[in-house]
Amino acid sequence: MSPELHISFANLQSNLQFFHKVIKKNTELSAVVKSDAYGLGITKIVPEIEKYGVRSFFTATIFEAIKVRKCSLHSEIFTLNGFDFLKAELYKEFNITPIINNKLEAEKFIKIFNHTHKAAIQLNTGMNRLGLNKQDLFDNLDLIKSLPLTLILSHLACADDTSNEENILQKDLFIKLCKSLPNIRKSISASHGTLLGNEFHFDMVRPGIGLYGGIKNDGLKQVIQIKVPVLQNFIIDKNMKIGYNFTFKANNKMKVATLAIGYADGLPRILSNRGKLFYEDVSCPIIGRISMDLVTVDISNLPEIPKYLNVFSPEYQVDDFARDCETISHEVLVNLGERIDRVYA
Amino acid sequence: MSPELHISFANLQSNLQFFHKVIKKNTELSAVVKSDAYGLGITKIVPEIEKYGVRSFFTATIFEAIKVRKCSLHSEIFTLNGFDFLKAELYKEFNITPIINNKLEAEKFIKIFNHTHKAAIQLNTGMNRLGLNKQDLFDNLDLIKSLPLTLILSHLACADDTSNEENILQKDLFIKLCKSLPNIRKSISASHGTLLGNEFHFDMVRPGIGLYGGIKNDGLKQVIQIKVPVLQNFIIDKNMKIGYNFTFKANNKMKVATLAIGYADGLPRILSNRGKLFYEDVSCPIIGRISMDLVTVDISNLPEIPKYLNVFSPEYQVDDFARDCETISHEVLVNLGERIDRVYA
Repeated sequence: MSPELHISFANLQSNLQFFHKVIKKNTELSAVVKSDAYGLGITKIVPEIEKYGVRSFFTATIFEAIKVRKCSLHSEIFTLNGFDFLKAELYKEFNITPIINNKLEAEKFIKIFNHTHKAAIQLNTGMNRLGLNKQDLFDNLDLIKSLPLTLILSHLACADDTSNEENILQKDLFIKLCKSLPNIRKSISASHGTLLGNEFHFDMVRPGIGLYGGIKNDGLKQVIQIKVPVLQNFIIDKNMKIGYNFTFKANNKMKVATLAIGYADGLPRILSNRGKLFYEDVSCPIIGRISMDLVTVDISNLPEIPKYLNVFSPEYQVDDFARDCETISHEVLVNLGERIDRVYA
Repeated sequence: MSPELHISFANLQSNLQFFHKVIKKNTELSAVVKSDAYGLGITKIVPEIEKYGVRSFFTATIFEAIKVRKCSLHSEIFTLNGFDFLKAELYKEFNITPIINNKLEAEKFIKIFNHTHKAAIQLNTGMNRLGLNKQDLFDNLDLIKSLPLTLILSHLACADDTSNEENILQKDLFIKLCKSLPNIRKSISASHGTLLGNEFHFDMVRPGIGLYGGIKNDGLKQVIQIKVPVLQNFIIDKNMKIGYNFTFKANNKMKVATLAIGYADGLPRILSNRGKLFYEDVSCPIIGRISMDLVTVDISNLPEIPKYLNVFSPEYQVDDFARDCETISHEVLVNLGERIDRVYA
């Protein structure tokens, strides 16, 4: 028996609507679908997002972009990780717009495509990860201006920290740099940036994690639930131990269930003796080490032997789960394994 | 550009040979290939292991077992997570041997198959995860004896802790319980158990992680290397910051490279400001937060701008990497993402 990842299209639509209502008039709502749409499945998620009217998608790599193209014939698809010029013919064949991050990529683009293909450009406004910084831009302004640009973008480093003045510094630098590239669409915000207010919306916003239920916010809905089948249940007596290296020892007689999910499926090992699963709203503590394919939980508090348990509850969402894993929702979602059946409804 | 996971068939063969030499005469060497052969790819790894002469494979689920069958027509394939009786017809169609873990599965097996199909059984000798314990076994001995058993197995909880007396207690209980099921093959050891000595070998050993380079041992070789392409390089000045939430601030002028790997690919976010990549034997510290698709490293010590960096070095193997991630090699391997190109040689 395998766990099931239930994905709610209704709540995905609701989250799209949330972002649509938040943004200012004439700002385009696009969607980031890199890493297989944050683990939820590009081939199902992209057509569903398109139904809402979204026409621009962002991936990291050219291969992800091709996967999007195969289920979205007419959208504009951008590759955030730059112009992979050794595979230039694929950008042409599948009509993918590379986001040029540096001088070399710009030179290669001009040499290969000249003006026969569109490009976007990324400016580094302080995150120091990808993109041209101020100096690069001004030193190569003629080259950059010669690109057939359809979009200028940048990325905020601290958008989830709403009061951080770095957000304003990045935005102001973005505005300043864009002045040298007039009349081209501009975009600086992903999910959290979009929530910072109108002045961060520009011509396009690019939510990702917020669409998929990874941000805890009154206006955003949970999109996923994981149902995990119980494989076996048993009683252990006081002082009996459980799992690898016997890290759990029972204080009293307990009812225990072993379920078909492990760290290979995305239940991180760090949750050993720390996490929990749910039977409706009742939490069942994880006891012992999480194995590759299995987890054991204490079901002593349940009225009956469950057929399955849930990973999330209304009060314990992806974001809460991520905190217990000492990470962020994004890493939780992209780690959901291939063995989990995706069930869309 | 995407990272490449290079998998050495020669070193996999060497590790098979290592286990073969370790085990006592007449003990069968099988292989655990669950979770897509620990992330390395069932369809390539299984035929390669078969070349060594291995004829028995273990998976967690029936769907993994079917994937093995499709590339291995004549081997015996066992499902460790039990008999998924709602899919009984698949065991028949693909000739998969379920490992029965409890009374219910035994009853279902008899009802559905009677003696028209083989089965294995798992005994719980103390790990308290899956399998029949002593009481279950003796209470249902007629039922269990009526199964067409080809293998009895159990699993050690503390095999990586060589001096732990729990290993001997589990082994002794296994021998005792098996006496009531005579003349059936017996197996208790995975990789670490196999290294505990002859008395843990019985009729079959079942190495997994040790085959794939996840155990640091003089006799075992590294099987994988990950080559990560550099997307961009740049200079940052003193006091400049890098990455999400600006968790890194430069003490002096530095050379920095941004590479095409992130936590979606299996470079865990916990390595932010803590891990390293390698240029030959020179380590390049990870600086700033690891992103979903990207990582930034300090390359100030390098003589030139590299085209790619490695995740491992001869002195920094999967096991060392896992320790820095506060986990074990197994979790590192199964988290390697789908975007990484598998290159077999």
